[in-house]
Amino acid sequence: MKEIGRKVWAIAGGHIPLQSHGREPELTSHDKLCMLNTSNHEAQVEITLFYAERDPVGPYQVSVPARRIRHVRFNDLIDPEAMPLDTDYGYVIESNVPIVVQFSRLDSSQQGNAIVLTTAYAVD
Amino acid sequence: MKEIGRKVWAIAGGHIPLQSHGREPELTSHDKLCMLNTSNHEAQVEITLFYAERDPVGPYQVSVPARRIRHVRFNDLIDPEAMPLDTDYGYVIESNVPIVVQFSRLDSSQQGNAIVLTTAYAVD
Amino acid sequence: MKEIGRKVWAIAGGHIPLQSHGREPELTSHDKLCMLNTSNHEAQVEITLFYAERDPVGPYQVSVPARRIRHVRFNDLIDPEAMPLDTDYGYVIESNVPIVVQFSRLDSSQQGNAIVLTTAYAVD
Amino acid sequence: MKEIGRKVWAIAGGHIPLQSHGREPELTSHDKLCMLNTSNHEAQVEITLFYAERDPVGPYQVSVPARRIRHVRFNDLIDPEAMPLDTDYGYVIESNVPIVVQFSRLDSSQQGNAIVLTTAYAVD
Repeated sequence: MKEIGRKVWAIAGGHIPLQSHGREPELTSHDKLCMLNTSNHEAQVEITLFYAERDPVGPYQVSVPARRIRHVRFNDLIDPEAMPLDTDYGYVIESNVPIVVQFSRLDSSQQGNAIVLTTAYAVD
Repeated sequence: MKEIGRKVWAIAGGHIPLQSHGREPELTSHDKLCMLNTSNHEAQVEITLFYAERDPVGPYQVSVPARRIRHVRFNDLIDPEAMPLDTDYGYVIESNVPIVVQFSRLDSSQQGNAIVLTTAYAVD
Repeated sequence: MKEIGRKVWAIAGGHIPLQSHGREPELTSHDKLCMLNTSNHEAQVEITLFYAERDPVGPYQVSVPARRIRHVRFNDLIDPEAMPLDTDYGYVIESNVPIVVQFSRLDSSQQGNAIVLTTAYAVD
Repeated sequence: MKEIGRKVWAIAGGHIPLQSHGREPELTSHDKLCMLNTSNHEAQVEITLFYAERDPVGPYQVSVPARRIRHVRFNDLIDPEAMPLDTDYGYVIESNVPIVVQFSRLDSSQQGNAIVLTTAYAVD
């Protein structure tokens, strides 16, 4: 299949709640980055995090194999540094091949789930 | 009415929860593909599923009659093979006529519903 | 303020749940059409509904005054005919001046709310 | 990092629920404007609010420092006037440098949370 998507994406509305209810790890509150790479080349992806009161942090480096999806929880990004909980953030994704990027959230901070899924803003 | 939409769409953030609460089948957790065909021709649609750790699967073939919508639960896609639950996936939709594609989710894995509706990424 | 938006919009994933919990009418399950008209001219809007198993119905006619928003519950569309509950639908919006269209849902079919807000697909 | 985004954005579907359950202020029902400024210049942002039955109000002025995000709760917009609760609204965002704008909602008007995150409509 041919390459689908863009090489640069952005999200402005990140926030991982502090609290969770329910079975771990499935129902732990999390923000998730969802990437689809339809191309025949591994995607080398760099994530830069933006905060309200400090300088940007990154790049965090992840890869998406050819003809695969990869879902990454922000809680699992630890190099160059783990993300703080209960903090607003945004991010920019840069890939060497076109990919499709969506953003999802599970908020289990009260009883019951609340969920979000939205396509990231396609930049280039 | 004239043709509206695109012929290729993509979603990166698929995931059908394992658990459900409430009346079946309305409140069974599901991911749903929502297609609108405003044209005067039946849309022949092919769905290719992408996974994190195996090769793409498909095409799954569905049709949308002229001047109709069609909502398809991923749980109901069984040919060439049924989808695993509790597994991350993405997909690409290819149609012979322009259609509009949205993606919805009902997550009833804890008490109460959680829902999502988002427009798929329009490729071509 | 200048005109902002498009004249034709579409949604594929409509569905009004049958059940509701909580205070009426605020917490009655509903799909809602949200329109923003920044222009200095009243927007004359025509809504055509598409179903899975019957011909399209419409147009439903609504107006949005100059420099105003208007939110319309689909439950309140009754001319040329009231919409059935618990039925999948899609729709196309056509306006004589550019507007911005979003779609929201409140699902209170189980205890607690579930909500959706998404920008409609911008056609023209 | 280079400038990313657009200078004009719009949202049609604003509504802050009257009721809240849970810890304040985290779980107070709110609509939130999420802005990402990747550029090296402070973004001067003007927000104009549109209502169903009265003239537009604004501009509300906020800034986003260079290489920062900023999340603003609509409940906190008080100059030129505080926003009414339980009222439909829309808005237009105008910035002097390109930014990325998303819109989120926390609805805790019944037990449990309901959440929304969507990218605003990119105008210019």
